[in-house]
Amino acid sequence: MIKAGIVGGTGYTGVELLRLLAQHPEVELTAITSRKEAGMPVADMFPSLRGRVSLTFSSPEDAALKACDVVFFATPNGVAMQQTRELLDAGVKVIDLAADFRIQDIAEWSKWYGMEHACPDLVAEAVYGLPEINRERIRGARLIANPGCYPTAVQLGFLPLVEAGVIDTSWMVADCKSGVSGAGRKAEVSTLFAEASDTFKAYAVPGHRHWPEIRQGLARMADAEVGLTFVPHLTPLIRGIHATLYARLTKDVDLQALFEARYQGEYFVDVLPAKSHPETRSVRASNHCRIAVHRPQGGDTVVVLSVIDNLVKGAAGQAVQNMNLLFGLTENLGLTQIPISP
Amino acid sequence: MIKAGIVGGTGYTGVELLRLLAQHPEVELTAITSRKEAGMPVADMFPSLRGRVSLTFSSPEDAALKACDVVFFATPNGVAMQQTRELLDAGVKVIDLAADFRIQDIAEWSKWYGMEHACPDLVAEAVYGLPEINRERIRGARLIANPGCYPTAVQLGFLPLVEAGVIDTSWMVADCKSGVSGAGRKAEVSTLFAEASDTFKAYAVPGHRHWPEIRQGLARMADAEVGLTFVPHLTPLIRGIHATLYARLTKDVDLQALFEARYQGEYFVDVLPAKSHPETRSVRASNHCRIAVHRPQGGDTVVVLSVIDNLVKGAAGQAVQNMNLLFGLTENLGLTQIPISP
Amino acid sequence: MIKAGIVGGTGYTGVELLRLLAQHPEVELTAITSRKEAGMPVADMFPSLRGRVSLTFSSPEDAALKACDVVFFATPNGVAMQQTRELLDAGVKVIDLAADFRIQDIAEWSKWYGMEHACPDLVAEAVYGLPEINRERIRGARLIANPGCYPTAVQLGFLPLVEAGVIDTSWMVADCKSGVSGAGRKAEVSTLFAEASDTFKAYAVPGHRHWPEIRQGLARMADAEVGLTFVPHLTPLIRGIHATLYARLTKDVDLQALFEARYQGEYFVDVLPAKSHPETRSVRASNHCRIAVHRPQGGDTVVVLSVIDNLVKGAAGQAVQNMNLLFGLTENLGLTQIPISP
Amino acid sequence: MIKAGIVGGTGYTGVELLRLLAQHPEVELTAITSRKEAGMPVADMFPSLRGRVSLTFSSPEDAALKACDVVFFATPNGVAMQQTRELLDAGVKVIDLAADFRIQDIAEWSKWYGMEHACPDLVAEAVYGLPEINRERIRGARLIANPGCYPTAVQLGFLPLVEAGVIDTSWMVADCKSGVSGAGRKAEVSTLFAEASDTFKAYAVPGHRHWPEIRQGLARMADAEVGLTFVPHLTPLIRGIHATLYARLTKDVDLQALFEARYQGEYFVDVLPAKSHPETRSVRASNHCRIAVHRPQGGDTVVVLSVIDNLVKGAAGQAVQNMNLLFGLTENLGLTQIPISP
Repeated sequence: MIKAGIVGGTGYTGVELLRLLAQHPEVELTAITSRKEAGMPVADMFPSLRGRVSLTFSSPEDAALKACDVVFFATPNGVAMQQTRELLDAGVKVIDLAADFRIQDIAEWSKWYGMEHACPDLVAEAVYGLPEINRERIRGARLIANPGCYPTAVQLGFLPLVEAGVIDTSWMVADCKSGVSGAGRKAEVSTLFAEASDTFKAYAVPGHRHWPEIRQGLARMADAEVGLTFVPHLTPLIRGIHATLYARLTKDVDLQALFEARYQGEYFVDVLPAKSHPETRSVRASNHCRIAVHRPQGGDTVVVLSVIDNLVKGAAGQAVQNMNLLFGLTENLGLTQIPISP
Repeated sequence: MIKAGIVGGTGYTGVELLRLLAQHPEVELTAITSRKEAGMPVADMFPSLRGRVSLTFSSPEDAALKACDVVFFATPNGVAMQQTRELLDAGVKVIDLAADFRIQDIAEWSKWYGMEHACPDLVAEAVYGLPEINRERIRGARLIANPGCYPTAVQLGFLPLVEAGVIDTSWMVADCKSGVSGAGRKAEVSTLFAEASDTFKAYAVPGHRHWPEIRQGLARMADAEVGLTFVPHLTPLIRGIHATLYARLTKDVDLQALFEARYQGEYFVDVLPAKSHPETRSVRASNHCRIAVHRPQGGDTVVVLSVIDNLVKGAAGQAVQNMNLLFGLTENLGLTQIPISP
Repeated sequence: MIKAGIVGGTGYTGVELLRLLAQHPEVELTAITSRKEAGMPVADMFPSLRGRVSLTFSSPEDAALKACDVVFFATPNGVAMQQTRELLDAGVKVIDLAADFRIQDIAEWSKWYGMEHACPDLVAEAVYGLPEINRERIRGARLIANPGCYPTAVQLGFLPLVEAGVIDTSWMVADCKSGVSGAGRKAEVSTLFAEASDTFKAYAVPGHRHWPEIRQGLARMADAEVGLTFVPHLTPLIRGIHATLYARLTKDVDLQALFEARYQGEYFVDVLPAKSHPETRSVRASNHCRIAVHRPQGGDTVVVLSVIDNLVKGAAGQAVQNMNLLFGLTENLGLTQIPISP
Repeated sequence: MIKAGIVGGTGYTGVELLRLLAQHPEVELTAITSRKEAGMPVADMFPSLRGRVSLTFSSPEDAALKACDVVFFATPNGVAMQQTRELLDAGVKVIDLAADFRIQDIAEWSKWYGMEHACPDLVAEAVYGLPEINRERIRGARLIANPGCYPTAVQLGFLPLVEAGVIDTSWMVADCKSGVSGAGRKAEVSTLFAEASDTFKAYAVPGHRHWPEIRQGLARMADAEVGLTFVPHLTPLIRGIHATLYARLTKDVDLQALFEARYQGEYFVDVLPAKSHPETRSVRASNHCRIAVHRPQGGDTVVVLSVIDNLVKGAAGQAVQNMNLLFGLTENLGLTQIPISP
C-alpha cells in the first residue's frame, strides 16, 4: 500500500483528492494537514466522507509527511516550493497541484505569481504532469507539477493539431468556461451563490496566470513560439470546464481521423464522433476528457470542443493518474468510476 | 455473475441503474429494452456511459429477458404488472421500480393510479423493498416492490419514533422537497430549466400518490391507522430529497440515542450528531440516507431531517441493494462509492 | 419630493432599496453611506444601476442624513438603535430594515440578538411595519420596524386563520424555504455557489431569530400565547421565500372565502384560486405576496402556501410601502412593476 | 393610446412582450392569440401577470387584429409571412420577432429555414430593426424584422470595429453563450432542468440560423463580404446572452475611445470603462446592452464582451423600442426599468 499525505486538505481539490484516494485500492491515507483546522476530523468538515475517511486534520509540524511515500500539495501557490526539497530529500515523491513548478521560465513565473521562487533548480527537475504528453518522463520523476485545469482542457484540445502542424500557431483562440468550484473554497463575495448564479461573465481578459502555462505547453508541442488569446469565463455550474478552441487550418486534413489516431489507446481521452457536442456533465466526477472537432461550413477554421471536470482531470484525478505512473501501477487504477449524470 | 436485464432504460432511474450495474462486480448487464430506441447503442443516448456500457437498446419482444437472473422494471406505472408473471414463471426474479406492487390495498391502488390491477395475487406476494425494515423477507422473495423516493426518506425518518411509540401518530406532517430529476426524463413544459430554476413551489397538495404508500408503511410500523399530511415541493436541484418531518412527542425520550440505536449497523443509514443539518449533496450519487433529529426549544415537537438521493436510495441504488439481498451477496456490494461533493 | 437617505447600502437590501427608490416618482435619493466604500460611486459596485444612480457612497459622518425626510437603515442588527434618536429628534422619519425595533420584549430581544438594547423607549414607540395588519398605526408613526422576510410570509399566511379563530394556535408549523440572497452579501463559505447550489438543507432548527418575531405577531393576532415550530431551509435560488404552513382546524369553515374576504382590497396580497400552488418566481422582483389555502383530503389540517420575494415584500419593497404610508402617498406608488418571469 | 395585438403569446417572448406592453404608458393591449389556449385568461397561464393583464387568449380567426395599430408576431418561423400582407393592407404596422423578414437573400433564407418564402417582396420592404444602426429607416417603416438575440449582441459588439475599418473582417470569431430561455417554452428533453442545469455545452457548431443573419449585418457594415465563425453555447441560466468576440486589429487605434464615441447618446448601449467585464445579470430584465473592449497583453487581438437579456434587447424589448420609433414616441418609453440584481 502506498502511504499518501495531503498538505492543505480543506479546499475543493483537497476534498476531491480525499474522495479518490479513499477509494483507491493501493493507497493508505496517512496524513492530512491544515493549520487552521488541526484537530478536527475530516468528516466533520466534509460530511460526504462520513464513515469513509477517519483521518483528523493535523498541523503541518505534527504530520508525519516524511513517512509517506507520496505527498500531494493542495495548497495556495507558493507553499509547496517551501517544503518540497525536504520531502524529496527524505525520499518522498511530491505532486504539487498548485502552480509552483509548472513554469520553467522563472522570471515569467515570478511576474505572474508575484513572488520570488524558492527553488528554481527543482523547477528544472519537475516534470509537467500531463500524462498524454509526458507519460514516460512522469514514470521516472520525483516531483510532478500537476497541470492547471484550463491548461489541461486547452492543451489536450490543441495537441493533435499542433503536433501535426496543420494550423497557424501564431493566432489561436481559447475561449474557456469554468464552473465556480474552480475559484476555490474561499469566502469571497464574487463567488457567492447570489452573485454567481443566473449570470455569466468573462474575467481576467487582460491576463490570467494560466495563459503562460498554456503558451509554454503549446510552444513545446510546436517547438516554436505561439500566439494565443485566452479568455476564461465564470459559469453557473459547480464542476466542469468547457474549452472552445479556434484556429486557422493551414493544411487540408481529415480532422476526425487525426484526433482519433492521436488519442487511440488513451483511456482518459475520448474523441467523440463527428458532429458531436460534448457537455461538461458527461465527465462530471470522472477523470475523462471528451473532445469533438469541427470544421464549420467546410471553411478554413477548425473548432475544437474539449470538456473535463476541473476538480478531477483538471486537478485531483490527474494527480492520482500521475501517482499511478510514479509508482508503476495501472494508470487508471482508482479512476474508473462512471461520470454522474444527470 | 448475475445476468441482469432492464426494461425501460431511457429514463433517469434507468440510466442510474446502468451506472450502478455496470460497476457492480457480480453483475453482467444482459439486456435493456426500449421500444422507441430499439437499435440505438445505450452510450449514444447517455455519453457518460461511453466506453463502459456496450449494450444496445432492444425491443421488448427481442430481449432475452427470460434468460436473465433478475429483471428491473424502470418503466411507467402499469407496465411491470403486465409482464411480471411470465418472468417469475421462468424463474426470473423481478424488481419493480415503479408502483405496481407497492400498495397492498388493491382498491386504494386503483383509485390513485387510475387503472385496474392486472395481478392482485402478485401484489400479495410482493415484498416491499425497504431493507432497513424488511430485510429478511426480501432475502426470500421473488418479487420486490421497490419503494418510492419520498416514501423512502419519510419512512426512514419516522421509523424509530413510530416503532418506539413516542409520538402521536394521528397527526404527523411530512414536508418534502425533491430535485427535478424526480419528475423523470419526459418532455414537459413545467420541468424545463427556464420554468423550474430560480423558483420554488409546492405541488399536489390535494393529494399525491406517495401519500397512501407512506401511510401504509407508517401504519405497519404503528400497527394502527395513522394521520399524515404530506406536501411535496419541487426544488431547483437535480438530485436529492429532503424530508422535514414533524410530530408531537407523547413521551420523554432521548431522541438521539433512540435513532442511533435503531440504525446501528445499518450501512446506508447515517444518524448525524445532535444539532446537525444534513444536506442533500452529502448523499449525492450515493445510496446513503442521512438523518438528524431535533427537539426545538426543548418543546414537545420532534423535527426529523432526512436526506437521500432520489435516484439512488430513492430508486436505482435501493433496487441494487435489494438485488444483493435476493442473491445472497454482501448488501452494499457495488454501492460503496463516496458521495460527490461539491 | 421626499429626500431619502440609506445607511449601509452595500448589501442586497441596500441595492434593492436603490433600485426601487431610483424609480419612485416622489423620491429624491440624497445620501447613501458605507464607511468601507466611502468615495466609490454606487454604480461602480452595482453595474445594474449605471446611468440611473449617480450617488457616491459617503462615510456616515459626512452624510447629510439629518437633512433627509426619511432614512432607511439597511445595516446589520444593532446599528440603527445607535443613530435613530438623533434622527428622530431632527424630525427625520426612520425605517429600520434590521431587527432593532421588531421585538417589544427587550429581554427576549437581547437573548436572541446577543446585545444590550440602546434605546428600549424607542422600541416601545416603534410601529411594526406590516401594513396589512398595522396600516393606520404606520401612517402616524415616526419610527418603523420593518418586518423580517420569514415573518412577513408566515404572518400573512396565518393571519386569516388566527384572526378568525379557526385553528388550534397551540401547535402550528411553519416550514419555510428561502433563497440564498436572504443570507446577505457577506463573504462566507457556506453561501458560496459551489456550496449552496444543487443542494438543499435546513438550518437553525434549534432556534432562529425570526421565531420570536413570528410568535409575537401571531400572539398579537390571537391575543394569546401561541405554539409555533419554525424550520427555515436554504434553497438554491436567488430571491424568494416559500412558507408552507400547517395547523389543525378547530372549526369547519370555507377557507377560500375566509382568505379572499380578509385580503379583499389589499393590493399586494393575492389569494389564488382554490387548488393553486404559488411559486416564488410569480412574485420575483415585486412587492406581492401570493397565497393559496388547502385542506388536503378534506381532513382537519389546513395547509397554507405563501410566497414573497425576500428582498422586496420581505425587505426593501415593504420598506417603501411603509414610506408611502408615512408620507401620505398612494400605498403602491413606485411598487407596481410586474414580476419578472421567467 | 396605441392599440397593440400579439400573435402567439404563449412563449417566452410573448409573455415578455405582455410584461413590457402592460406597463407601457401609451399602449393598450387589445388582442392576444393562441389557437391552442383560446378562451384561457392570460394570467391563468402566467400568474406573474395576475391583476395586470385581463386579456384572454383568442383564436387567430376571432382576434380583431386589423383593428390594431400594431401587431407583434411572437410565433414560430413561417407564421408571420402568411399573415403580414393582410395586416399591412389594413394599415396595421407589423413587427415580426421571428426570422421571416430578417434575411434579404431569399434563397439563403429558404436554405436555413427549410421552407419557401411566402412573400419575397415584403422581405425587400422590411426594415431590419436594430435601431442603433437603422434608426431612421425604422421610423418610416411599416414592417420591422426584429433581430435575433445572438445577432443583436454580436452586431452591437463588432459594429464600432467594422465601421471604423480597424479589423480584419475576413476572420472574425463570435463565441456566444445563451441562457436556456432562448430555446423557447417548448416541451423538449434537452432543455429540461435535469438536462440543462449544472452542465455546459456548445451546439449547432456545424451551422446555426443566426450565422447568415449576423454575416448579412456585418457585411452591410463593412460593405464587403466577411468571414465569421459563430459558436453558440447553452448556459445554465434563464436569461442572458454573453458574446465574446475576437478579431485581428489591422490598425492601431484607441479602442475605448472608438467604442465610447460610436455609442455616445445611445440610451440602451453602455460602454463600460476599460478593463471591465460585463455580466449578464447587469442587464437582466432590461433593454440594455453593456459592452467592454479589451486588447490583451497589448497584442494585435481585440476582444469584445457584449451582454444583453435575450428576451428583452434580444427580443421583446427591442420590439417595443422599434414600436416607439414607428409611432414617433420617445425611444425608451416603457423601457426604463432598472435591471434586476441580484
